[in-house]
Amino acid sequence: MSVDQLKLYHSPGSPNARRVRIFIAEKNVTIPLVTVDLGNKEQRSDSYRAINPRQVVPTLVLADGTAIGEVPAIFRYIEEVVPEPALLGTTASEKAQVTMWERRVELEGFAAVMEGVRNVAAGLKGRALSGPHDYEQIPALVERSRQRVANFYADFNARLTKVPFIAGEGFSAADITALATVDFATKAFNSPIPAEHTALKAWYDKVAARPSASA
Amino acid sequence: MSVDQLKLYHSPGSPNARRVRIFIAEKNVTIPLVTVDLGNKEQRSDSYRAINPRQVVPTLVLADGTAIGEVPAIFRYIEEVVPEPALLGTTASEKAQVTMWERRVELEGFAAVMEGVRNVAAGLKGRALSGPHDYEQIPALVERSRQRVANFYADFNARLTKVPFIAGEGFSAADITALATVDFATKAFNSPIPAEHTALKAWYDKVAARPSASA
Repeated sequence: MSVDQLKLYHSPGSPNARRVRIFIAEKNVTIPLVTVDLGNKEQRSDSYRAINPRQVVPTLVLADGTAIGEVPAIFRYIEEVVPEPALLGTTASEKAQVTMWERRVELEGFAAVMEGVRNVAAGLKGRALSGPHDYEQIPALVERSRQRVANFYADFNARLTKVPFIAGEGFSAADITALATVDFATKAFNSPIPAEHTALKAWYDKVAARPSASA
Repeated sequence: MSVDQLKLYHSPGSPNARRVRIFIAEKNVTIPLVTVDLGNKEQRSDSYRAINPRQVVPTLVLADGTAIGEVPAIFRYIEEVVPEPALLGTTASEKAQVTMWERRVELEGFAAVMEGVRNVAAGLKGRALSGPHDYEQIPALVERSRQRVANFYADFNARLTKVPFIAGEGFSAADITALATVDFATKAFNSPIPAEHTALKAWYDKVAARPSASA
């Protein structure tokens, strides 16, 4: 299947959509983009809910109409149809390690930032969790998110004193999610990398300089 | 690599470890188990932290000593070295769909139960999130977790009125995580499947009757 038969529903401002756009840019392919207007709540429209009942971006729609939601699932599909350069590992051990590290970055970093943002933003009252169901904000989660982000930065700084990239020796999807996390934390949660975390900052400067970072 | 050179660090009572044990049983292989005594906080010991710095089970240790944490990463490794029967899909589209559905079950179901349990249990005061860092319990999360579990049950009951298994036509890792979720919710969070969700209950009876369910 050619990737130009795919469609990626995205939003320019969505950090989850950016993870996928960077992944695609690293593959040196182009997938047609369809913008979902989150500002006008287009993700909650009947037409978009028919594509993704969770009402979130991104969604990758295949040539046969199958809709793939969830970033790691979209990564998996693209890696299968465009294997090179490998971003999810090549050996069994590497595939497992990239899965582990990409997930750890997401759960310990990305999700912590998201939880902070969704529980503090006035525009997200009653929408503390993404998806089709409404949940009230819990103010105590905002402070806890700040602690989690601080721990994420410290733990991954320690990691990057030992290895050049998040999952080890090579650039991978784990670096993509980590880059998106740092930029999201910086822009939306006022939590840039603390100056003392020099290994993390050096890693950030290196991956942010890749052409894909502008995707 | 033979699977008998692997070691799975687990705990009999850990629902995350059970996900992996069921996956292994479905593969019809045996992987040597090493029990981590969570009751005596062995997961926080220096020796276990050297294996898994997140101080959680399960961890799969490969023959060369590489430690793989995080359930989807362990699934990925085992699927690579024991491809049959496929539990993560066979075509690119299936692989992406299983990744999506397994993840949705985890985030919408399993993680909701876990959040409820960790924020209500007296024995987990100061340990509201798994991992190396201490976080205080937030009582408001307990009620929100109950709402999330109720929504999970309703949403997946609707799904199972249309398809026989969580990810579609065939049994997959998504069913394993869903089975572990229902049993965890029932035993640890007093949240069995509501009687009105007959499609979900019929699916549960079917997968709980597989020999792997006793793993």
